[in-house]
Amino acid sequence: MEDKVVVNKKVVLKHYIPDGPATESDMELVATDTLLLRLPPGSTAVLVKNLYLSCDPYMRSRMTKHDEPSYVDDFVPGTPITGYGVCKVLDSGHPDFKIGDYVWGVTGWEEYSLITSTEGLFKINHTNVPLSYYTGILGMPGFTAYVGFYEISSPKKGERVFVSAASGAVGQLVGQFAKLMGCYVVGSAGSDEKVNLLKNKFGFDEAFNYKKEPDLNKALRRCFPEGIDIYFENVGGAMLEAVLQNMRLNARIAACGMISQYNLERPEGVSHLFTIIAKRIRMQGFVVFDHYRSYREFEEKVVQYIKEGKIVYVEDIAEGLENAPAALVGLFAGRNVGKQLVVVARE
Amino acid sequence: MEDKVVVNKKVVLKHYIPDGPATESDMELVATDTLLLRLPPGSTAVLVKNLYLSCDPYMRSRMTKHDEPSYVDDFVPGTPITGYGVCKVLDSGHPDFKIGDYVWGVTGWEEYSLITSTEGLFKINHTNVPLSYYTGILGMPGFTAYVGFYEISSPKKGERVFVSAASGAVGQLVGQFAKLMGCYVVGSAGSDEKVNLLKNKFGFDEAFNYKKEPDLNKALRRCFPEGIDIYFENVGGAMLEAVLQNMRLNARIAACGMISQYNLERPEGVSHLFTIIAKRIRMQGFVVFDHYRSYREFEEKVVQYIKEGKIVYVEDIAEGLENAPAALVGLFAGRNVGKQLVVVARE
Ligand SMILES: NC(=O)c1ccc[n+]([C@@H]2O[C@H](COP(=O)([O-])OP(=O)(O)OC[C@H]3O[C@@H](n4cnc5c(N)ncnc54)[C@H](OP(=O)(O)O)[C@@H]3O)[C@@H](O)[C@H]2O)c1
Ligand SMILES: NC(=O)c1ccc[n+]([C@@H]2O[C@H](COP(=O)([O-])OP(=O)(O)OC[C@H]3O[C@@H](n4cnc5c(N)ncnc54)[C@H](OP(=O)(O)O)[C@@H]3O)[C@@H](O)[C@H]2O)c1
Repeated sequence: MEDKVVVNKKVVLKHYIPDGPATESDMELVATDTLLLRLPPGSTAVLVKNLYLSCDPYMRSRMTKHDEPSYVDDFVPGTPITGYGVCKVLDSGHPDFKIGDYVWGVTGWEEYSLITSTEGLFKINHTNVPLSYYTGILGMPGFTAYVGFYEISSPKKGERVFVSAASGAVGQLVGQFAKLMGCYVVGSAGSDEKVNLLKNKFGFDEAFNYKKEPDLNKALRRCFPEGIDIYFENVGGAMLEAVLQNMRLNARIAACGMISQYNLERPEGVSHLFTIIAKRIRMQGFVVFDHYRSYREFEEKVVQYIKEGKIVYVEDIAEGLENAPAALVGLFAGRNVGKQLVVVARE
Repeated sequence: MEDKVVVNKKVVLKHYIPDGPATESDMELVATDTLLLRLPPGSTAVLVKNLYLSCDPYMRSRMTKHDEPSYVDDFVPGTPITGYGVCKVLDSGHPDFKIGDYVWGVTGWEEYSLITSTEGLFKINHTNVPLSYYTGILGMPGFTAYVGFYEISSPKKGERVFVSAASGAVGQLVGQFAKLMGCYVVGSAGSDEKVNLLKNKFGFDEAFNYKKEPDLNKALRRCFPEGIDIYFENVGGAMLEAVLQNMRLNARIAACGMISQYNLERPEGVSHLFTIIAKRIRMQGFVVFDHYRSYREFEEKVVQYIKEGKIVYVEDIAEGLENAPAALVGLFAGRNVGKQLVVVARE
């Protein structure tokens, strides 16, 4: 592979976009840059071949220019989108990574990436599970489910758990973790196919298609006649408002995401917040980035669950970098069934 | 006092009222019932003379009929309003209370009350402070400030604290507790007179009249250029929405009350809730009733503070039971300056 120069196809953000939906045409595939597949002498970077790229909802926010720093950096128009991915190390100036290693972490939406910020990179310890799992169940979304459920929501056996966007990358795992703990678990999702997955593949006790429910409050009351102890919040807006009206005393809300708001010009108002007082609710926001010090503990536990067949995972795989923009945009229309990822190369 | 029969004036709720403002005319003073000022033999109740009655915002909710149980019981039309008060024991069948004791707790809006549920009653241990303080600084609102600040908001020295309805029964104390801890403290209130109290009597670092601020977000930014660590939430609605936009990383919201919502037919929507995630905010609702087991610890501490002059307290005193309805309704127009109470009798 020495001295090989390649054309490095990439997906770049064409321009910042205002609030509102992003579209495929806000990104473009360019194939003009070339790259020498070897690090310059003395570099401490890692040169990787990107195999799987992850499409994640938070990436939408990075496409908008923020006057004040947001919780994630804005993208830079004209340069490749960055995000999580699974990669193979082609060359390394960093002692933690060797040629031939598989790693996951922050990389570029391109065929090859020169990664200089290696703090965001984890060596993959288990290669006897699908490598793509490190974009999902064993990567950022999986770890999000783990932190949010076990650490933020303070679950107890027998509690009643509701998960929104329940068939997605994070939600399908939250539900399975909750079942493993002996909770009663209900999920909502945006199609009958997804509802079917929830009940028949992920073992949720109940599930409903929120798009077919004229009254979310009633749907929740039907599924939780005695109320909800834990809400794993992925969508926000009207769903949060309905959930608030169905909470039990001392309930917790693990505030993970509010995807229904990411594409709005002005976020919706949520009422019934007084319930937080009347029902002594703890609503706690968290961001997975703060918790990576316990990533390895999570990885071992979940690899074990996978091997024992205690947990399953559904992926939605787009083929080829050229299909990445559509895959990303599709998250906001619920086109993905399970974890949305993009295959750049399989090896 | 033996065998004395008195006419017992009382304030009764005339009828349940729907959502929306309560008015004085929803209550009325009646003076038809008589009462023998002695307990029947074998009674375990306590017969008291009511001295000071407390007007508290939560009482509004009790005037509406709820289909499902609310966090406080609905009043019963035609019977006296119940609420917190300071009373003198005239007769007692209960071992914890003796004739001549002063007590505070749940009593009726009437001259004399027969209290059968004595769990809600505390003997007053300190009679060398104004007895009326047991409706405020040493009673339910004071204890609310204590629990909400020290237990719910996890304060640390040097943190930036914002208190809404800051000159009221609860708020004036929260601010003073926060100053005692070495925090930077800002309060909002609804008149220049109250703002003046905050700055010049209670020692807040800054204060503003929210009714004169065209943009609450900007007012908060002015007072907290580096953001807010702790929000002691008393009002909800637009103020909460503005606060959310000014929170710092890992901020806490002690959700105590949302008085701006109590008189609305439909609660307002609050947007910018995504900040709870981006800033890793913990919003925690609490109700003081759950915490009374630590009341005595609070009482000793705050009596000490009062004696040492470390804490001051402002009361707004209405004279006579006949003025109680107006005093209660006045809370929702901000007519009270400091803790609103009603004197029924001074001894
Ligand atoms: N706090 C953190 O650190 C962290 C980390 C990762 C993810 N997250 C958050 O977790 C949530 C789930 O992420 P994920 O990666 O698991 O995504 P995902 O669920 O795999 O994909 C997004 C899903 O959201 C649903 N959705 C889209 N628009 C919606 C709308 N307007 N209303 C309701 N649902 C809508 C769609 O499913 P339906 O067909 O069911 O509508 C879509 O499939 C997101 O809010 C994300 O931002 C947070
Ligand atoms: N969680 C609990 O256990 C608990 C216990 C006690 C009290 N609380 C809550 O704590 C809060 C304060 O109670 P408090 O007893 O100290 O009452 P308070 O502040 O002494 O009296 C109420 C004050 O609220 C303000 N207000 C009224 N309507 C308003 C509106 N629409 N928008 C903004 N402010 C408004 C007024 O002051 P301005 O002139 O400043 O507007 C009024 O003086 C209330 O929300 C109450 O429900 C909760």
